[in-house]
Formats: sequence, C-alpha cells, structure tokens
Amino acid sequence: MKPLFLPVILGTPRRGRLSAHVARFVTGEIAKRDGVTTELIDVLDVPLPVDGAGDEIQDPGFQARMEAMDGLVLVAPEYNHGFPGLLKHLLDTCLPEYIHKPAGIVGVSAGPWGGTRMVQGFLPVLRELGLATIFTDLNFPQVGKAFDGEGNLLEPAYVRRAANFLDELVWMATVLRHGRENVAREEA
Amino acid sequence: MKPLFLPVILGTPRRGRLSAHVARFVTGEIAKRDGVTTELIDVLDVPLPVDGAGDEIQDPGFQARMEAMDGLVLVAPEYNHGFPGLLKHLLDTCLPEYIHKPAGIVGVSAGPWGGTRMVQGFLPVLRELGLATIFTDLNFPQVGKAFDGEGNLLEPAYVRRAANFLDELVWMATVLRHGRENVAREEA
Amino acid sequence: MKPLFLPVILGTPRRGRLSAHVARFVTGEIAKRDGVTTELIDVLDVPLPVDGAGDEIQDPGFQARMEAMDGLVLVAPEYNHGFPGLLKHLLDTCLPEYIHKPAGIVGVSAGPWGGTRMVQGFLPVLRELGLATIFTDLNFPQVGKAFDGEGNLLEPAYVRRAANFLDELVWMATVLRHGRENVAREEA
Amino acid sequence: MKPLFLPVILGTPRRGRLSAHVARFVTGEIAKRDGVTTELIDVLDVPLPVDGAGDEIQDPGFQARMEAMDGLVLVAPEYNHGFPGLLKHLLDTCLPEYIHKPAGIVGVSAGPWGGTRMVQGFLPVLRELGLATIFTDLNFPQVGKAFDGEGNLLEPAYVRRAANFLDELVWMATVLRHGRENVAREEA
Repeated sequence: MKPLFLPVILGTPRRGRLSAHVARFVTGEIAKRDGVTTELIDVLDVPLPVDGAGDEIQDPGFQARMEAMDGLVLVAPEYNHGFPGLLKHLLDTCLPEYIHKPAGIVGVSAGPWGGTRMVQGFLPVLRELGLATIFTDLNFPQVGKAFDGEGNLLEPAYVRRAANFLDELVWMATVLRHGRENVAREEA
Repeated sequence: MKPLFLPVILGTPRRGRLSAHVARFVTGEIAKRDGVTTELIDVLDVPLPVDGAGDEIQDPGFQARMEAMDGLVLVAPEYNHGFPGLLKHLLDTCLPEYIHKPAGIVGVSAGPWGGTRMVQGFLPVLRELGLATIFTDLNFPQVGKAFDGEGNLLEPAYVRRAANFLDELVWMATVLRHGRENVAREEA
Repeated sequence: MKPLFLPVILGTPRRGRLSAHVARFVTGEIAKRDGVTTELIDVLDVPLPVDGAGDEIQDPGFQARMEAMDGLVLVAPEYNHGFPGLLKHLLDTCLPEYIHKPAGIVGVSAGPWGGTRMVQGFLPVLRELGLATIFTDLNFPQVGKAFDGEGNLLEPAYVRRAANFLDELVWMATVLRHGRENVAREEA
Repeated sequence: MKPLFLPVILGTPRRGRLSAHVARFVTGEIAKRDGVTTELIDVLDVPLPVDGAGDEIQDPGFQARMEAMDGLVLVAPEYNHGFPGLLKHLLDTCLPEYIHKPAGIVGVSAGPWGGTRMVQGFLPVLRELGLATIFTDLNFPQVGKAFDGEGNLLEPAYVRRAANFLDELVWMATVLRHGRENVAREEA
C-alpha cells in the first residue's frame, strides 16, 4: 500500500522559536513509523506575500504538498491565546487540498497551559478548511524544560505521548483515505 | 448491509420552541433515505436530574441509543451565543459511545445568523466527546418564517440544503463505521 | 461608598465536586477585602426546572442577586472541554441584570490544564449576556492536590494568585459601576 | 475634555477587498461625532515582516497609534470561519498599549452570516490583549449588496446600526478612560 504522507508544519516565524525543537522531534517520531512518510514544512520557508490573501498568494510548492498529504500535523505556539497569524495566512492559501483529511495539533507554550487555548481557537478554522481535527492533542507546556539548547529531548515521557497522538492520526488518516478512494459521496 | 442509525436530538426544552419543527423536518428527510434509520430524541423526554452531572446521571435509554448510533444530528437554537445548557448536560452523560462517529449540527435562530455562534461554541465539546463534526452545517435563520404554525415547511429550498448536509453526514458515517469495524487502531 | 457586591457562583452539581473547595476559598478571599461583600451561590440550591429555558424558568432569588451584584465570579470545572451545562442553563435565566458588569472566571480541573478550555468556551456567552470578562483568570489544575479532604488550602501560592485575580475584578467592578451610575449612554 | 481617539483598522490585505468600503463608511460615521477623532489604519500600510512575530517586528507608527487610542474598531472579513491571519500578526506586535481599552468588531462576509464566526474566534485573543470587546457588533452580510462599486452605501439601515454600535463603543471608551485616569488598581 502507498505510504501515508503526514507532513508537519512548523507554524511560527518567531526568532529563537522553541517550537522548532518540537517540530523536529515530532517529525522524527513520524519518520520512525512503518508505512508513513513525512517532511518538515517551515512557515519561514514558504514565500508569503503580505499584499494579498487566500488563493491569490498560493505557493505552488506548498499547494503540491497539501494536495499530496494524507494528514497534517500543525506545530504552533500560543500567542495571545490564539494561533500565530502567519500560520493562518498560510493555511488560507489552499482549500480543496485539505478536504476529508485529518489534522493533529501540537500545542507549545512557555507557561503551564501547553497551548490549549491555541488549539481551541483553531478548531473552527480547520473544520471549515475541510480538515477533521483528531481528538488527541500533543501539548508541550514549559517547552524550555522539555529540550536542551541543541533540541535534544529532556523529558522521555513525550515519546509515549507522541505515540498516542500519532496512533490516532494514523488511524484517522488510514480510514479517511479509504473513504476518499472507495466511498462515493452520493448526492441525494 | 446494516442500515446506518442516525438519530436526531432536539436540544432545547424551551416552551413553544420552533426548533421542534426543524427537528421533525430533518428527521423526516433522513427517514426518506435508503439504508438509513432514524429517531427523534427529545431532550424533554430524557430524565435529566439536576443534582449530578456526567455518567452519574446517565439514562439507560439514551445511553443505548448513543451506543447504537452511527452518526448524530444535533438540532439546537442559539441562546446567548451558545448552545442550550441542558443539551450539554445531556451529552455529558455519555462518552465512549460517541467515539469515532460523526455529528452534524443544525442551527436555529429567531434572528438572521442561523445559530452560527452556537455551532462555533459546540465544536470543541463535540471533539472532546470523540465525535467528528462534519464541515457542512444546516442553518435556519428567522425560523419563524421557515414553517407555518403546524410545522409545515414554507421554504422549499431547505429540502436541498438538508440533502447537502445529509450527504456529508452519510458519507462520514459510512467511512467511520468502516474504520471502526475494519481498521485496527495500532498502538505504536 | 456602598460596598461592591461580588457573589461567587459554584457552577457544578456533580457529587463530590472539588470545585466546592475552590468556591469556598475564593469567597473567603473576597470576604477579607474592605469595601466588598460577597455570597456563595450554589447551582444546587437554585431551583432549576428542566422543562423550560431562559426567563421562563427564572428564580426570583437568583434574579435579585444578579440585579444587586456589581461583579460576578464563576467557579466551574471543565467537563468535556466546556462549561457545565447546568451553569449555562442557570445563567440564561437572566439578561438585563448582567449588563455592564464584570465577570471573572475560576477554572478547575483534575488534570493539568486548569480549566483553560472551559474559560475559552465561556467568553462568547458571557459577552452576549452583557458581562465584561476580565482578562485575568484563576486556574486550579490538579485540584485534588490543592486542598485536603476538608477543603483546607494546601498550596499557599493560590492566595497571591487569587489576590491578582480579585485586584482586577475589583478595579473593573469599580470602574463599570461608576460608568453605570454617572455616564449617560448617549444615543446618537 | 480631550477627544476620544477611536481609530479603525482595516484588517485584510486581500485584493479587491470590499471590507475597504466598510472601513471607510465606519470611519466616516465616527468622524461625524462630537468629542471623537478617528483615523483609518490599513493593514496594507503597516510594514509587516514575515520573518518574525510579536514585539520583535513592532512598527513605531502603529505602536504610537495603539498607545494613543482610547478604543479600537476592527473591520475584518471572515476567512475560513476565522479572522485574517495578517490582522492577528499585526495585533500581536503590541500588548501594554491595549490594556483597559474597548474594542468593537465589524464583521464582513460575502455570504449571509455577516462574519459572526470571525467575531467568535477573535474574542479570546482580544481579551488576552487586554481589550474589552463591547457586546454590540456591526455585521455586513452579503457586503456586495451594501455598497456600490465606488463604495457608496446602498442600504441606509446601516447608518442606524453603526450608530448603535458606536454608542456602545463611545460609552465604554469614556468609562474605561475615566477608570485608567482616576481609579487606582489597588494591589491587595
């Protein structure tokens, strides 16, 4: 069977962002799995004009990845109780590419709440994009303690937590791909 | 193949509730479909103690229906930009029964916005219950104009809108049931 | 000057609710302040019919307290990433009583996130009720460790956290009461 | 008394944006009032780097306006059931400048729901910024019918709706400015 393509989007351009450690860790955990491929997409690497919005500023490389993916991991810190604005600016450039595919959210925070409020704010947006957000999140509260300065994981419990998160993402990606390929959407 | 069981919950106990017309209409539209069964569950008919919460006040009849269902339709008005409290009080009584099943939301309002704000507020709750909220809603703004006093539909366009909504619900219910029955959730 | 009346609503009827410890603690911290009176309102003690909604089931005692209050503290656990349904069922029974008064939210959870998701879900509802939710929350994660079995506080840091929360609530209650009493709302 | 400074932010860079008509109309309605000054701030005119986030990309001109303002009007379309990402990218560049000042949201949509979902998603973010979102919104559903191609208002009812919205914003701006200038925030 064709492997599932589950790319990870690192969703903040902030300098010194610790979310980069998280995104690399999650990408690595995905890469270890059988039957799955992945790729780290950095919001810093996608050309993002600020004099337009939506499909009028679509990047062909990003669009092709969204077309090809079977499920998406979003790694994002919580800024002012919401998602980074640039991440939404980027996601808004595509639409049909997302439909009937799952998304999993990885929340990152300097403080104790693990980005839970960012997750809550993302749910209506991801739904409208056609993505089915899985009901297991992965949260990195006090991210400064979870990795050392080189990005090595300091808290081994995250390996199991990431596994639970990815189990659910893989299940949903498998099921929805089967649906997209085999179940006709009947028009009544 | 066993028919999909797609019950409808009428989610407000308010006297004179026009949502009852909506719930009966939607139940009727589901009943017309092949391969599907339905039932109207009225929040007024489920015993709901107010001296407890969650599984401690679970009703066996409601629990059995949630266990048996393959997808859920929630019909609810918007009260103060949120869902009716009693509907959440009821939904909170179950949990494993909902997992990996889709939900579709039907918003009702006296004014122009069709319950969109109620829908937004419901998304995080339904996700945590394990329900996958479909990305097509059905909205009845100015519900007083959509039905006559006996509950007969006055605006025929709702038949097509309900069909679009149900097409998506049936697709997701079909796909997720296949997943629940055939795709092992591998533990990494 | 007339003291500010800042009642606390204990918002869950769940048996064995640890939120009761939290509500008593917060009520006690308010009572220690000069120029402020308080009262603990237990959702269990307000008659709450389940065969109606909104003003049709209004309780005169609750209504009188909402009329009299200058600011509200809501103590609520997070159930399924949302507020307890009965708390909204109760709040929906009033409306003009709330307008231009502040609310502060105290989140309670058994797990690590302190009810942050419940807070997020409450914001649109409280705004529509006319309440101005202050931007400082008070969160009790892992509430089982914060109090002993008799409800005595085990973690003294909560005294300072509650003070920060109440400083903001008192400021906003003072400012909005001045506005209600002295600033005409001009109709253009 | 010093006039209230109530600037309007036009929050989308999308080409052909009809929100520009809305923002100009609202700015004009504010300018007609006594005791108030305003200015239209266009997200297109503020330098917005995409290789950073938050205060590290702060623009001095925008910062000075946020420092000076007594209340903010946000005009924004709903993109994928949320606010434009660039608008949050911009708002995240300031923080203390917003505290204890009101915000009013003007929702714009091509379709029937008037941006209500964008408003819902903004509430937690604006609260965390320290802004008090007023409980009256101004909604422009089917904005293509509200203005002609030159931006002239075609539906006169919006004049009264804008007046209701601005009455509330002015009241809250007046009350909170009095509070900022006269009510000490006591530290308990």
